[in-house]
Amino acid sequence: MSRPGPTGLASVQGAARLAAIQTGLGVEFDALLVTNLTNVRYLCGFTGSNGQLLVLPDRALLLTDGRYAIQAPDQIEAHGVDVDVTTAYSRRKAQLVEALARSEQLGLEADSITWAEQRQLEGWLPKLQLVPSDGLVEDLRAVKDRSEIERIQAAVAIADNSLAQLVESDGLDGATEREVANRLDSVMQTLGATGPAYETIVASGANAAKPHARPTDRPIGAGDMVIIDVGAVVDGYRSDMTRTFVIGPPRAEQREMVDLVTAAQAAGVAAVAPGVAASAIDHACRSIIVAAGYGEQFMHGTGHGVGLDIHERPAIAGTSAATLAPGHVITVEPGVYVPEHGGVRIEDLVLVTETGAQVLTGSPKIPLLE
Amino acid sequence: MSRPGPTGLASVQGAARLAAIQTGLGVEFDALLVTNLTNVRYLCGFTGSNGQLLVLPDRALLLTDGRYAIQAPDQIEAHGVDVDVTTAYSRRKAQLVEALARSEQLGLEADSITWAEQRQLEGWLPKLQLVPSDGLVEDLRAVKDRSEIERIQAAVAIADNSLAQLVESDGLDGATEREVANRLDSVMQTLGATGPAYETIVASGANAAKPHARPTDRPIGAGDMVIIDVGAVVDGYRSDMTRTFVIGPPRAEQREMVDLVTAAQAAGVAAVAPGVAASAIDHACRSIIVAAGYGEQFMHGTGHGVGLDIHERPAIAGTSAATLAPGHVITVEPGVYVPEHGGVRIEDLVLVTETGAQVLTGSPKIPLLE
Repeated sequence: MSRPGPTGLASVQGAARLAAIQTGLGVEFDALLVTNLTNVRYLCGFTGSNGQLLVLPDRALLLTDGRYAIQAPDQIEAHGVDVDVTTAYSRRKAQLVEALARSEQLGLEADSITWAEQRQLEGWLPKLQLVPSDGLVEDLRAVKDRSEIERIQAAVAIADNSLAQLVESDGLDGATEREVANRLDSVMQTLGATGPAYETIVASGANAAKPHARPTDRPIGAGDMVIIDVGAVVDGYRSDMTRTFVIGPPRAEQREMVDLVTAAQAAGVAAVAPGVAASAIDHACRSIIVAAGYGEQFMHGTGHGVGLDIHERPAIAGTSAATLAPGHVITVEPGVYVPEHGGVRIEDLVLVTETGAQVLTGSPKIPLLE
Repeated sequence: MSRPGPTGLASVQGAARLAAIQTGLGVEFDALLVTNLTNVRYLCGFTGSNGQLLVLPDRALLLTDGRYAIQAPDQIEAHGVDVDVTTAYSRRKAQLVEALARSEQLGLEADSITWAEQRQLEGWLPKLQLVPSDGLVEDLRAVKDRSEIERIQAAVAIADNSLAQLVESDGLDGATEREVANRLDSVMQTLGATGPAYETIVASGANAAKPHARPTDRPIGAGDMVIIDVGAVVDGYRSDMTRTFVIGPPRAEQREMVDLVTAAQAAGVAAVAPGVAASAIDHACRSIIVAAGYGEQFMHGTGHGVGLDIHERPAIAGTSAATLAPGHVITVEPGVYVPEHGGVRIEDLVLVTETGAQVLTGSPKIPLLE
């Protein structure tokens, strides 16, 4: 019942995902209400802005509204799953009460459901015990299947090609940060992306000292370091990559920062393998930066999983309890940021394989634009 | 302490907004934790992805993390407000306990805070009563000040011009839905938008029967009705507009649907004035569509407020309890959707004025492209 994905990518086999959740029922709770929209999409393919998926041991029910009367069944069929749909939003309470008549505990995605929604369900379902659930679907999503890896690779290729076209055609010198970001977004769309994976970052000069800077009208000029953080979306799946450009001959302190982050990032990537603690990847990068005296200037985690969300499991940070497993797709992105002066960040997207790691992003590191 | 906004727009005066919230404290709760990121931005200017604003009677404190050590104080100053910032995320619990030492009830934005966060705060602050708060900041946001209306108008102008360029240059016939959507997005960025206000909808033929269709690779051709729903973002503020194009001479039933929705939409706009019930706008549109026998084919609300969010207060629906007030910016967007056949939706963005209404969107209605 599944259809080929867009642009010839492998079709999604959603049934295994839903079955994995159903198999897990009966321990802490015998039904799960999936409210995180990305999780809803992952399990049943539905991409609307209003949808909750009730997973019971022997069936699943998508609760949405009349706007999606055509779209929801279409997407569920394309996802290869067997899910009932109700669009009678006004009868939502009665439908939940009926569907949960034989359940005793209902798991709620506590990181997604709002307090107001939880309070409403408490009122609607007084006999049911509501149990906070943490990351059941997110842990499943962390391990990508073939159809997901193909989509991420397609998104990576678009961002790589977009950056290459930018550098080859116009370069950066003289353009504003916003113009460069817009050009990247535009080329990515031309190449088949449904959009940027996040707001494209182009941060030059002192702006590059802000890890999450947004593009401004500042013109890029000689002597600047420019952080470009860009990714694409293909069929919902995202890519993520950062490169730092130096415009003109680098000064000594620029060279030092660039060499340091390059070395730290390479050490992080080299440490990626199945069975390795996520915190060890962070340590591999951070210890090099700390030893060089820039520890205070690397004030974020080393990376994160990427998939349908731009930030998903596993977290790659010193505090992360995760262990890398085959199918994880993670970023390795150390950076150093010196207020008033600028910053350097280098980021690859890395697939954890059965035996080690495969770097997905292909753009050259630290191009010098002279 | 405020700076001029981008591209010569009036600067934001955030202090009055924060003062309005502080004035409301002491009734249901004596402190409010603002967790909705759009509300955080509205009150203090901060646009990062991690920020909670604690509003106390005599001060306000933004809790964020080290990534925003430069950005947060910069944005707060540009917003013209006096807000303390802490980026020590690991000491968040201690800082909340200390800041709330003299408080007895803490309001939480129940529609925004997750159940997991509410449970965490319950554990951290056992002596405090946690009180669900509903829409305090959202109601303030519904009434736009001059700086906000200017930004929305700038966003409207960009979307209008983008649609005009599309029609004048290439037309629609022969392009795919996705190509048209990408072209609109690209032109909007060239004209100064920071992005589309939402995923641009271009839905042709049978796809137009889905109110929230996403662009596909379907080529647009003669005989199609094409719904284009497009808006821009300027400095965070959004515009929203829908036009329906008919490619080639309309067939009788197309003409009927277009004339019907045109009349219903005009009736809705004509009803907009301060003091009018939002439900009356919905009724003005819907009664015309129902009378024509298309009631079942208009399965969504008539409109919604637009500002920093694409959907905000007031809701324009039969069930809405809101009353229109000067400064509200709302959409009026009836539609009819016939499965397999197609759909028509026409949407304007309308400012409620002291004496009536001002239609902000300027694109011509129902262009025929022959």
